[in-house]
Amino acid sequence: MTTKTVLLVYAHQSAGSFNAAVKTAAVDELKKQGCRVLVSDLYEVKFKATATEDDITGAVKNPEHFCYGNETMLAWQEARLASDIVDEHKKLKEADLVIFQDKKAMLSFTTGSHETMFSSNGINGDMNVTLWPIQNGVLNYCGFQVLAPQIFWAPTHLSPEAPAGPLGGRRPPPSNEAPLAFPPADIFDKGKGFQLKPEVREKQADSPFGLTVGHHLEKPLPPQSQMKAGV
Amino acid sequence: MTTKTVLLVYAHQSAGSFNAAVKTAAVDELKKQGCRVLVSDLYEVKFKATATEDDITGAVKNPEHFCYGNETMLAWQEARLASDIVDEHKKLKEADLVIFQDKKAMLSFTTGSHETMFSSNGINGDMNVTLWPIQNGVLNYCGFQVLAPQIFWAPTHLSPEAPAGPLGGRRPPPSNEAPLAFPPADIFDKGKGFQLKPEVREKQADSPFGLTVGHHLEKPLPPQSQMKAGV
Repeated sequence: MTTKTVLLVYAHQSAGSFNAAVKTAAVDELKKQGCRVLVSDLYEVKFKATATEDDITGAVKNPEHFCYGNETMLAWQEARLASDIVDEHKKLKEADLVIFQDKKAMLSFTTGSHETMFSSNGINGDMNVTLWPIQNGVLNYCGFQVLAPQIFWAPTHLSPEAPAGPLGGRRPPPSNEAPLAFPPADIFDKGKGFQLKPEVREKQADSPFGLTVGHHLEKPLPPQSQMKAGV
Repeated sequence: MTTKTVLLVYAHQSAGSFNAAVKTAAVDELKKQGCRVLVSDLYEVKFKATATEDDITGAVKNPEHFCYGNETMLAWQEARLASDIVDEHKKLKEADLVIFQDKKAMLSFTTGSHETMFSSNGINGDMNVTLWPIQNGVLNYCGFQVLAPQIFWAPTHLSPEAPAGPLGGRRPPPSNEAPLAFPPADIFDKGKGFQLKPEVREKQADSPFGLTVGHHLEKPLPPQSQMKAGV
């Protein structure tokens, strides 16, 4: 069996946090399953979240009108990207399979509020809507297969012993776990401003629900579509 | 007439960008209207987007288990927050009215895709859903009245002369412009896990739409609710 490489992107300030305990438990469990585990600890490496000239080395092509997209494209072609970016690229390339679109990603996070408060009927509104921009707009857009998220609801309301316990109900995802469904690009008509093809829309006409949270077609949102695979 | 103070939070790497031209036009127009204008240029001040120990000065209370919320609360009480945060607090306090909940905020941004691609029928999905987490979860949650956003759709597809032109259709908002509607906290039952009160849900039963993008109550989303006031 080929060893799977898992890249875990971790972001929390405190080594004593619940999130740190979750990370350690995930690393231990994945290693136990025979995986090679890479961790990007964003706070430890002081990850720079801004997109600036510091992301490239050497001369800027157009200093009067610095255009980030053009300059970083050129820097990438000429191997002049900053070393912190090159390091992360290397980890991404090593993780799991070589073909980018076969890569999987999963969000794992804690909330401050209870689960009921993140429902369509609760004060924070539907968690599926909150997840849509990041799971569709970032992860799916970048070509990841997105696994159902692992959400620890309001761990600060748990007893102090809880972090050392079972860490919630989600186990590490099995390698054959189905990803969440996002519409493939080819159901949109490139020649007509990337609008949904009429035949797809017609096919959806009988459904009581829209296609996705974002592609709702003025119908009710498909329930739990950002939280569970196969719905 | 009392002078209104407007705080403009600006984030773009390049002084030659369309976004820079929009910022300059907004500052000029607001000054012409008699406003005092404060600008927070996040790239210029190298704004630190991460929440770390560097946000406080002096001794950390619990270095083994650094808890950001507790430590910054204490630092705020003892005037030990870092100077960059204190500076931004000062600007926020000076802006417009003294009472925080009377403050208004408006997103202004450019997109890479055309407007049709950000519809429920377009490849990126409904912009109202994309806006919900930031307009509700950040701005409304922090107590801002949220004005309809100013969106410049795909300016890179415009002719090179366009940035010097009318900069799109949105004028600076008049001081009496109605904000977008978000549900007040008191329609949720604090004693029952902040769920929508049954009488509010009943009142909504006759509507073909949910209350908001997030509080959709398993109905179609209210159209354009994150893009236009009064809908």
